[in-house]
Amino acid sequence: MTSSPNDLIKFLRRLRTVRDFTSDPVPEAALADILEVGRWTGSASNRQPTEIIVVRDLEVRQKLNAVGASTAARAALVLVIVTPGDAARFELEVFDEGLLAERLQLAAAAHGLGSGITTLKGDGPDVAKALLGIPLEKRVRCVISVGVADQAAIKAKPKRPEPRKPMSDFAHFEKY
Amino acid sequence: MTSSPNDLIKFLRRLRTVRDFTSDPVPEAALADILEVGRWTGSASNRQPTEIIVVRDLEVRQKLNAVGASTAARAALVLVIVTPGDAARFELEVFDEGLLAERLQLAAAAHGLGSGITTLKGDGPDVAKALLGIPLEKRVRCVISVGVADQAAIKAKPKRPEPRKPMSDFAHFEKY
Repeated sequence: MTSSPNDLIKFLRRLRTVRDFTSDPVPEAALADILEVGRWTGSASNRQPTEIIVVRDLEVRQKLNAVGASTAARAALVLVIVTPGDAARFELEVFDEGLLAERLQLAAAAHGLGSGITTLKGDGPDVAKALLGIPLEKRVRCVISVGVADQAAIKAKPKRPEPRKPMSDFAHFEKY
Repeated sequence: MTSSPNDLIKFLRRLRTVRDFTSDPVPEAALADILEVGRWTGSASNRQPTEIIVVRDLEVRQKLNAVGASTAARAALVLVIVTPGDAARFELEVFDEGLLAERLQLAAAAHGLGSGITTLKGDGPDVAKALLGIPLEKRVRCVISVGVADQAAIKAKPKRPEPRKPMSDFAHFEKY
């Protein structure tokens, strides 16, 4: 079976950030797929600057949570993205990190899992490096929480609309 | 019909950069879907810093091609990404640009179209701003070429493998 364009477009359009997770684990096969999709994500000049640390340990996730990864403690696991920290290629590293983060979230969604991108704040990157044994020169900022979305908790919350600007403010034709 | 996890994972894993395009146009309905998927792409704090300029005009694409957007002249159209150019939020703008670029490529692939990310080089951003009427303070760097992949041209080229590093160099568990 192959998916229709319409199915795939719907799948892509519907990705939303998940902030509430059940206590269910992420199945091993789903995690393997997420990592494989991540490994195949493109990068500038195919330099593949990104690496991932999968963290399930609750104590470590709680410590990441405390420094900005605001859903890390509630998720089943987090994916911490690491890049080389090459100052001359800073912009490219951040851009490639964005490509990867998007693809990881979609891979989680392909398995019906929820995910959300969070950002380490303040001394969060240093805390993460110490906790996870990441060399000091590396860059770490982005932590993706992954788990089973807690639909009951999501529904119980006051509705949090995530509106988007109108198409006319987003897309222009031929001229800005 | 809904797609199986396996179908979606295959779809995500198989995205590859396309550098050769036929002269076929991008159907309007496919472009509309690509832009709609782009509009719904997430961003830090839902600030939606990105905008897109769709450029079909060949002369303009040739000029963008000359300053780094290396497949712009061959594609059916290009999507030029614009962000506010807020220095204090530079890292977030670049990251969000990466999220968007990835999703746009996947939306093109959903319609069977090829795409490739190119980067304006040297004075390319200034050239693009002048050509497209983009205010000077804005940031522009990334140009995505979209069109029908020219399979004959791709096959005729010496095979260009795009290997990926082994999983053990990409994913780590609990510790770096």
